[in-house]
Amino acid sequence: MAEAKKLGGAGLRGQVAGETALCTVGKTGAGLTYRGYDIKELADNAQFEEVAYLLLRGKLPNQQELADYKQKLSGLRELPEALKAVLEQIPANAHPMDVMRTGCSMLGNLETEQDFSEQLDHIDRMLAVFPSIINYWYNFAHNGKRINTATAADSIAEHFLWTLHDKQPDPLHVKVMHASLILYAEHEFNASTFTARVCASTLSDIHSCVTGAIGSLRGPLHGGANEAAMAMIENWTSADEAEEKIMGMLARKDKIMGFGHAIYSTSDPRNAIIKEWSKKLAEQVGDTVLYPVSERVEAVMWREKKLFCNADFFHASAYHFMGIPTELFTPIFVCSRVAGWTAHVMEQRANNRIIRPSAEYTGPEHQDWTPIEHRE
Amino acid sequence: MAEAKKLGGAGLRGQVAGETALCTVGKTGAGLTYRGYDIKELADNAQFEEVAYLLLRGKLPNQQELADYKQKLSGLRELPEALKAVLEQIPANAHPMDVMRTGCSMLGNLETEQDFSEQLDHIDRMLAVFPSIINYWYNFAHNGKRINTATAADSIAEHFLWTLHDKQPDPLHVKVMHASLILYAEHEFNASTFTARVCASTLSDIHSCVTGAIGSLRGPLHGGANEAAMAMIENWTSADEAEEKIMGMLARKDKIMGFGHAIYSTSDPRNAIIKEWSKKLAEQVGDTVLYPVSERVEAVMWREKKLFCNADFFHASAYHFMGIPTELFTPIFVCSRVAGWTAHVMEQRANNRIIRPSAEYTGPEHQDWTPIEHRE
Repeated sequence: MAEAKKLGGAGLRGQVAGETALCTVGKTGAGLTYRGYDIKELADNAQFEEVAYLLLRGKLPNQQELADYKQKLSGLRELPEALKAVLEQIPANAHPMDVMRTGCSMLGNLETEQDFSEQLDHIDRMLAVFPSIINYWYNFAHNGKRINTATAADSIAEHFLWTLHDKQPDPLHVKVMHASLILYAEHEFNASTFTARVCASTLSDIHSCVTGAIGSLRGPLHGGANEAAMAMIENWTSADEAEEKIMGMLARKDKIMGFGHAIYSTSDPRNAIIKEWSKKLAEQVGDTVLYPVSERVEAVMWREKKLFCNADFFHASAYHFMGIPTELFTPIFVCSRVAGWTAHVMEQRANNRIIRPSAEYTGPEHQDWTPIEHRE
Repeated sequence: MAEAKKLGGAGLRGQVAGETALCTVGKTGAGLTYRGYDIKELADNAQFEEVAYLLLRGKLPNQQELADYKQKLSGLRELPEALKAVLEQIPANAHPMDVMRTGCSMLGNLETEQDFSEQLDHIDRMLAVFPSIINYWYNFAHNGKRINTATAADSIAEHFLWTLHDKQPDPLHVKVMHASLILYAEHEFNASTFTARVCASTLSDIHSCVTGAIGSLRGPLHGGANEAAMAMIENWTSADEAEEKIMGMLARKDKIMGFGHAIYSTSDPRNAIIKEWSKKLAEQVGDTVLYPVSERVEAVMWREKKLFCNADFFHASAYHFMGIPTELFTPIFVCSRVAGWTAHVMEQRANNRIIRPSAEYTGPEHQDWTPIEHRE
């Protein structure tokens, strides 16, 4: 074997591991585009289904295409009986990301991708049914309630909120969910997407790719920052208390979640969008604590450390105002990012070579076998 | 962001993606060592549990340590009731790798890794219980039989065969299974192991890492070569027919599974070992077809193409002689490689940076937003 080249940084940072036409992240230090469209224009104007269509089918749909696509998705929301039976076996204290991972994996047993020509149908099924999976389990495990997952919701955004609360949601909340799902839909070769591509490179099936990606998103260094931000800010009863506590955390060099980014250097383009929605929701619910606390934390972090909010920070308060339990924040991320993951799987399949890097060996040189009776 | 460096080859081939002390693959074009021990010495002399101990705990165990370890593992074979209920929901025509993936994922709901200090206990549990998972499902789905998974087997090798056939296996078969599990236990940064490391780099839990790895091993470019080899050779009734058919396949440039390797250039060190066992098993069962067919295919492939058998080719006949259904070949690979995967997860956790490469953007430059009513 030829001598392997050593990479400059750990974690493949800054190393090109493949090609994509889906997304640019931080090309100018700040921007995010999906197939060339600026994230702000998409989040301000589009429905999530338009963005999923853009990522998976290469262009924005026209009115008829969008109507057809939404109709297709709305027919794919019901859970197979065997999948319900599996979800009912999962205890209430399970990690919701483990539930998502298992639900996706079980779906692959029941509706197996037999051939890549079927990929878009399986992807659409996952987009439509993932909210049903997490919220069927959540309601059954916590309230003993078997919800009807065949909702009359107009969209995935509405379907998520409807199945969570088992009733038609507030229109403002649906709008916020569209924006949120768009903001989280795609982000180039992040760790979960790269997991999906490594799996896809073996020519494995679509459920394996997504199941693996869910497992990677579960990690606290990846998904989960909005949950951690919520766990922090919900403790504080005023902006002044928040400032005092943040200053103490900074003095102790505690990790503060929801700030900074591995790729963005000056700001996260997703923050301004979700912050605006969080503010509107705060006004709707008459909040006088959580939003002011969040704003103060943002100001102090910038003043003290020049650290900016990433996409996750104002998602915490926004989701909270909509009555979403904190432990379901990362599963929402799954319901969104599955669009990006599967678009990457399709790209990988279309131009594939198995992803099989080398390692630098740091272990012992030759060791002689010692029969067990002579070992110490 | 600094300009990303472009890699020389697709699929990260020949690029160092991290460090490992576990394994060298093809350092001289042929060899394979686990922590410095030659694969042949391990496969000829060790039990699989000694090799798992070596990979996971850094040294070969002495007699007391091995006895204690095997006793611990033998106490971890029973399935939780909720996991049995899940396996019973999976139909007989499911892909057995989907069953393994779902079984592992479900286990993570029931016995969640709460802290990395627990990692070795969860790893040992997976080593002990994976044969129970696949064979409980297999017997229930195909024969409606609920097997007892608390076997009196001495080892994982024996436990696999015992749960598959629901009776104590032949001692020769147990010896072959030890060798087979050792040969498949570890192979550096192959795609499934790399999947596990990418997942681990987000600091996700051990069940997510292994679930993702199973999904990648499922791909036909990775695991599954021994199943494909079996599907080929079982069609032929004599060595002469095999030669004729192989010559035809070569003339048509058909892909012939079980030959050559991405890393090894002159031979696969695992082949001679499993070939010898396959020959002994052929003698035991009085085979006059499958082994001669396999030998002839090996000879023709070398004569015509200078292609050598990899680890998978003689595994096909060896497993077949032991009465193992072809569709369970890759799940056995899982029962073995889980040792390597989890040893890599432990390494990644001990010296971690999130694995987040860059991509080369090949999509459109800026696209202007078009309101949906103006789209074509």
